Parts: sequence; structure tokens; C-alpha cells
Amino acid sequence: MLYESLADNLARSIERGSLRGGDRLPSVRGLANQRGVSVATVLMAYQQLENDGLVEIRARSGHYVKRKSLVALAEPRPPTVNRTATKVSVCLGVSAVMKAMRDRSVVPLGAAEIDPELLPLRALNRTLSLIAREMQWLGADYGDLNGVPTLRRQLAKRAVKWGLSLHENDFIVTVGAMEAINLCLRAVAQPNDSIAVESPTYFGVLQAIEQLGMRAVEVPSSPRTGLNLLALEQVLRQKKVKAVLASPNSGNPLGAVMSDEHKERLVQLCRQFDVPLIEDDVYGELAFEGRPRPALAWDTDGRVLLVGSVSKTLAPGYRIGWVVPGRYQEKVESLKYALTVSTPAILQMAVAEFLSGGGYDRHLRRLQRRLKSQVERMRSLICEHFPPETRVTCPAGGFVLWVELPPGVSGIAVQQEALRHKIAVAPGSLFGAAGQFDSHLRISCGFPTTERILDAVERLGTIVQTVKRTHQAGPHHVTA
Amino acid sequence: MLYESLADNLARSIERGSLRGGDRLPSVRGLANQRGVSVATVLMAYQQLENDGLVEIRARSGHYVKRKSLVALAEPRPPTVNRTATKVSVCLGVSAVMKAMRDRSVVPLGAAEIDPELLPLRALNRTLSLIAREMQWLGADYGDLNGVPTLRRQLAKRAVKWGLSLHENDFIVTVGAMEAINLCLRAVAQPNDSIAVESPTYFGVLQAIEQLGMRAVEVPSSPRTGLNLLALEQVLRQKKVKAVLASPNSGNPLGAVMSDEHKERLVQLCRQFDVPLIEDDVYGELAFEGRPRPALAWDTDGRVLLVGSVSKTLAPGYRIGWVVPGRYQEKVESLKYALTVSTPAILQMAVAEFLSGGGYDRHLRRLQRRLKSQVERMRSLICEHFPPETRVTCPAGGFVLWVELPPGVSGIAVQQEALRHKIAVAPGSLFGAAGQFDSHLRISCGFPTTERILDAVERLGTIVQTVKRTHQAGPHHVTA
Repeated sequence: MLYESLADNLARSIERGSLRGGDRLPSVRGLANQRGVSVATVLMAYQQLENDGLVEIRARSGHYVKRKSLVALAEPRPPTVNRTATKVSVCLGVSAVMKAMRDRSVVPLGAAEIDPELLPLRALNRTLSLIAREMQWLGADYGDLNGVPTLRRQLAKRAVKWGLSLHENDFIVTVGAMEAINLCLRAVAQPNDSIAVESPTYFGVLQAIEQLGMRAVEVPSSPRTGLNLLALEQVLRQKKVKAVLASPNSGNPLGAVMSDEHKERLVQLCRQFDVPLIEDDVYGELAFEGRPRPALAWDTDGRVLLVGSVSKTLAPGYRIGWVVPGRYQEKVESLKYALTVSTPAILQMAVAEFLSGGGYDRHLRRLQRRLKSQVERMRSLICEHFPPETRVTCPAGGFVLWVELPPGVSGIAVQQEALRHKIAVAPGSLFGAAGQFDSHLRISCGFPTTERILDAVERLGTIVQTVKRTHQAGPHHVTA
Repeated sequence: MLYESLADNLARSIERGSLRGGDRLPSVRGLANQRGVSVATVLMAYQQLENDGLVEIRARSGHYVKRKSLVALAEPRPPTVNRTATKVSVCLGVSAVMKAMRDRSVVPLGAAEIDPELLPLRALNRTLSLIAREMQWLGADYGDLNGVPTLRRQLAKRAVKWGLSLHENDFIVTVGAMEAINLCLRAVAQPNDSIAVESPTYFGVLQAIEQLGMRAVEVPSSPRTGLNLLALEQVLRQKKVKAVLASPNSGNPLGAVMSDEHKERLVQLCRQFDVPLIEDDVYGELAFEGRPRPALAWDTDGRVLLVGSVSKTLAPGYRIGWVVPGRYQEKVESLKYALTVSTPAILQMAVAEFLSGGGYDRHLRRLQRRLKSQVERMRSLICEHFPPETRVTCPAGGFVLWVELPPGVSGIAVQQEALRHKIAVAPGSLFGAAGQFDSHLRISCGFPTTERILDAVERLGTIVQTVKRTHQAGPHHVTA
């Protein structure tokens, strides 16, 4: 891991401007001597920086800080306002994306998953192994139905870093954030009720709403400022929705972090119109400029239900999430008992043990930097290879990009053609209740930019061009 | 464990009648010599048999097979038919029972939980420990969303022993049987739809129905033959229900095993009236006279959704259940993805590994015998200590007893008074959609009959008497 620390150091110097585009990096041998590390370590660090797109090799000359790409694409435009409640219908498309995720021969730009190498799985599994060996009675009962107290205590401690003051009893541990979102939706609304959601929004949210027989009122969200509060206010004024569900901290797919002022206003609006706010904070730890506060920080009367998980930072397969249900505590508890009874205690204990060590914060800092660099690299590759009318987000956190394709190019057509070339991407249509984002793609940057991914993005650029040409060639391909 | 095998052997001799009531057991030293084991082992085995109520010590004489209790109580009467759909309302009472379960100072006759000593937790946790140590990438992704293939393969193999021919792809692994039941209900019905359930039935089922906004049509179930098929036919004829949910193999709380003929007829009825059957088979492995076939064995067109779990045989806290959804496969998959995405793979792998060894079948046989003996012991204690108008089931499997209290005695009153004496029991009212079983109790026999439990049952008998007297003393206590 030594070379990684070195690479991180150098990356930070580049970010801060101590090293600028065109600067030559120290010679390999020189830096090795200076830092007291081996030549191999420096070479691996430089390789890492090259993979991350920060550094380039010039033949017989050395390593240079790469100049920022000259081609810069515009950002996607927020969707137009459409305040009718929509029956959601995304489930089939989602299954296809989830299934492609399992196929390791496919280049993984589709699902929002992180390279396992970037997650502390070895340490976590070792902790689990020790716990399972030492505590031989584990699994004997359902455990504390609200979650293992040690984990809830760790979460309450971490909440201080999020700017919140919470007690362990405020948390209910769930089977990932998806169970938590399902519980929240059911706690605050009934079938046929409408929920205000960001547009575009994470398809899992739309799927849950669809399957609970609820409806979505889509409120435009901007890649820079997040949920459009004026549009939300209009929706709330019409008293059409039973709740607001939003992800103010680098949500999927836009990656916008709402300002503190906007979060405060968001909570105020919910209070004014007396609706709960389900806050999906799953990407909160992955904001690039420090951990932003959740909107819950401005809640005064328990109407914010905060949802989080370790799926994007530790281990998606552990299925550990949580909810702070505020005034809906009793209702959420009772729903949880009747749904999955409790969350497996052994896995909760392993996560609690891991969180209690200092390693988690170090890991988070490194993960944030790494993902940021992968996102930036992917952005510049898209700028390089996609047609100039393409638009792409510049997210403030997370690890996905939202791409608006040139006019007339269908995201589903691109996805299908890409899959024939063993490249997975998520079609934009999944991120709207009525499939209205078919001119968009979501591209995940969870994996380092290897040759394979470089090639895949170049190929994707070609596909976007080709699909476009095909499209323009015959009017029978035109869709509304 | 040696003494346990010895005790099991002797218990079987008693069951089969090779040793009868009043027979003297071999002397401790004699049996030790004969079997080539230590005197201590024989003493522990005899102690075990004594705890199980099979053997008694006569001072200065030795160990004797106990004569069957002379007092025998009648069995509870099946409820009267009530074919209206009922809005369910049990959740609050259930929370109280679940919470009492966590308090180790309370005598555990309330929740349907098994003494951890009777579960192979050490071996299972050791397996988990090894897997977590060796497979360092576990947890990196959501895994196969339908469940780890090795577990599904083991389940398909086991299904042969249940009299079924299933493929691994027929299974979806869930977070315990409760998630599976929720998925099934949502796959086949909508809010406001009615589900035919046994009466009395497991409160978790009623809770799930309540929280999904569905209604229950309660069909009387008999302690001996299970679901009343004539009553069911009438309900189906009126086309009032969207599905039937039943537990034909030693279901909770009656413990009845439906005959093969009745199961066949049950499936036929569902076919005739074109409704799905959700079959809760969680107690199927715990039938006393060998593993009965699930009703699914008579299904010809995929309308039976079979639900199972390892919560009653291996480890409730692992939260591993499954569903064989038949023709509803796609719908259940899609609901599962949007609810908890997938079930933690690590725990599935540990269970799969454990099932693949021969130890599981041995464990099951021993567990069945042990639970049967605990149930019989508890039955005779109730016969001894409860008023003679009490009625109690003689279950064909599982480990709970359904007790009908003498006329006028309220189960809730008994539960509350018992809790003051640190004894947990489940009030019968939880097992009916409208709380109609308040003259009943469910008593769990998951723990060996220790002194503590002996005392508790004696105390319970007194409470039942007292509550009755109080009740009869003043008309202001009379409830309808």
C-alpha cells in the first residue's frame, strides 16, 4: 500500500496546484532517494497517477503532469417541470442492468459498484472471521430487533462527524438502504399516494415506489444545485404529495451536493406543508469536498427520516443499512419486525468493530480521493471521445456521471449496442418514472481507468456516433 | 455429546415401548460397563431423561421409566366459522412479545424460540469463520440476487427428501421466511385484497397482512387435521380471496400435520378456484413422525409458493429463508431486488456448507426427538397444574402448545400477570385477526424442562386459577 500513499500525496499536490499541467515530476530515482522508498514503489505510484489520468509519460523525457483536457463538454440541462403524478414503470429495465452486473466479462460502467480493490474487504472479513470464531452463540436468536447496540452506538458517534446529534436508539439497522427506503415509504404513505422525488433519480427509489403501488411526482433536479426548490414548493402547495424523497448529498445519478441554505429551505418547506422528508444519504460519505451535513441537521420536529448504508463505502454484500426514522420510529419498527424481523447480527458486529477502529476514516479519505480522480478521468475521456453536443455532469461527489447524449440519440439503443461489445452502461430511461430520460446514460466510475476501460469509453464514443448516424439515416427510427 | 447419544437411545427405547412406565433402568455402573462409557456419562444421560420427564428417581432404588400422566386434558375446539374479511390489528401486541423475548430474566415460554444449546451454532459459526477468513473478497458485491448457487443447490438436493423435485433455479433466497411471505403476498395480491388464512394462525402472517393493507379471511383449523377444507371451499366459492396462506406441516400454533389426502385436496381446491397457495413450511422439518411432504408435491401448474427457512432448525439470527415461487418467479424476483436487493452471501455460504455435510440430518433427527420430548413434558405439566377445564393440543410437530383456558379466563390477563412473575407466554389474541382468541395461550416448549420451567408452569397454573377467580368475583371484570 506504500505506493498508494505516495500516489495520493502526489495527486493532492496536483489538485492543490503545487504541481501544474506540464510540470515534470521528479525523476524516479530522485524521488526514491528523497522519500527513502524503493524505485519500484515510485514506479508503481507514477503508474497509478497515469491510470488516474493525472500524469503522462513523454518518451525519453519522464513523467509530466497532464494538462487539463481542452475539450470541455457542457453540463446536462435539468428536465422541464412536469407536476403530474406518474405511475412508475422501470422494473424490467432494472433487472437487465442488475444481471449484467454479475457478468465479469462485461466492462462495468453500468451498475453503481466500486472496485473491490478499493474496499477494505480483507480487513472486514478478517474481523468477521474472528467474531464468528469467538462468539459461538451468535445466530442463536433474532438479536436486538432494532440492531446490535454496538453498531448503533458507532453510528451515533459517526453522526457527530455528519453534524448531527443522535442517540443510538434513534437508529434502526436495516438490510441495506433499500429496505430502509421501503420501510420509510410504507411508514409515511399508502398505495396510490404520491411521493415527490428528484428528477432524474435513482431507479431503486422508483422501483420501490412502483412496487408499493405509489406514484412519483418528479421535481426537476439540477446537476449543480440539486432539487429545484421553487418547483418543489409549487408541488407542495398543490398538496398532491404525501412525502418528499431526496438525496441532497451527491445523490445518484447527478452527484449534486445541495448547499446548506438549500437544505435548510428544503426542510422548512416540508415543515410548512407538513410532509415528511425521506433523506437518502447513501452517498453522503463520498462527497469530494468534505462530509456535507444531511438535511436532518435542520430538522426541528422529527419529520426527516435519514437513510444510510455501508454499501458504497465498505461492503455492499453485507447488506447493512440504517434509518433514523424520527417521529415515525414506532411505525418503522413495527414494519421492520413484520418484514425481515431483524438484520443479521453477526454482520452488524463486524461492521461495528470495523467502524470503531481508526482505519475507517483513513479508508474514507482515500476512497473519496480515488473516486474523485476516477470520475475526473472518466469525464475527460468522455470529453475526448463523445460527440461535442454531448453534455456531462461535473459531480460534487459519488462516482457516477450523468450524460446527456446528442439530440436524437437513444440511451437504450446505446446501451444495447454497447452490451453487444461487452460494455455495460445504465440507460437514462431508468432514472425517470416514465422513461423520459432516454436521451441520457449513467456511466459508473467505480473502477480505476485501466486500458480495458479506456478502450470501452472510446468504443462507447463510436457507438454514440454510430447510433446517431443510424438514427438520422432513416425516419423510421425516429421516436417522439 | 456422548451422554446425549446415550440419552437419545434410551428415549427411543421408551418411545417404542421396549422400556415401559414403571420399568427400572439398568444400574448406572451396569450400563456404563455394558456400553463401555464412564459412570459420569450414564449419570448425565439419566439426568437428561429426568429433565425430559421420561424418567424419575426413586430414593435408594434407582431410575424408573415414568408412568404417563393420568390426568389428560381435552384438545382445544376449532373456532367457529366466520367468513367475513377482517381488518387485521395485532402489531402492538406482537411488539410486546418480541421485546419480552430479549429479556433473559424472563422464563421463555412466549416466543417460538429454541434453546441455543439444541442448535449446532458452534459448528455453523466455525464454518462461517473459515469462509470469512479464506474468501477475502466476500461482500464485494450483491452476489447472485436470487441467492448463492451453492445454497440453492443444497436446497434443491434437500427437496428430494421432502418428496419434491426442484431445480436450484426454482429457489430465491430471502432474509428469513418473513421476507419470503411478504414477497409472496405482494406478488399475488394488492392492498384491500383478502387472503384466506388458517385460524388460529401465526401472528407474523397476520402482521404482514395488516401492514400490507390486505384483509384476512379466517378459515377454522383443527388441532388434528389442520385447515377445514369444507370451510375453505365455501370461502373460495364466494370468490372473496386472492390467495390462500397455510402451513400444512406442523404449523404454528396448532402443530397439526395435514394428511396427504387433505394436502392434495387443498391444492385441487386452489386450482379449481384459480387462486395461488402460499405454503409456509417453516416447521416442516420438525414433524415428529418423519418429514411430511409439502402441499407443493401435488401442484401441477406452479400455483403453490413454498416458503421455508433455517430459523427453526439452525440459526434464527442468520436470517436465511427461501421461496420457491412457481409461476410467480419473475414477480417475486423483481420485488426482492427492490426490497433488500439480495440476502447476505456470506451467511448463505455458511449455511450451504453446513447443509452439505452429513451432520445436518443427524442434527435434525436429534432435534425432532428432543423437541417432541419437551412438548410431551410440557403437556403433562399443563395437565398437572392447570384447571381441568383447560384444553391443550397434542401437536404432530413443532414445539408450541395451543392452550384453551377455562371459560371466562382471559389470555391477556394471564400473560400480564405471568410477566409480573417474569414468565413470558404468548396471548392467544395475537393469533386471530380480530383478537378473538383471548381465551387461549400459546406456550413454547423450545427449552428443556429445567427446574425453572417446572416452577414457571406450576405458577402459570396458579395464575390461571387466580385470574379465573378474580374474574368470577366481580361483574366489572367481565368482558364480552
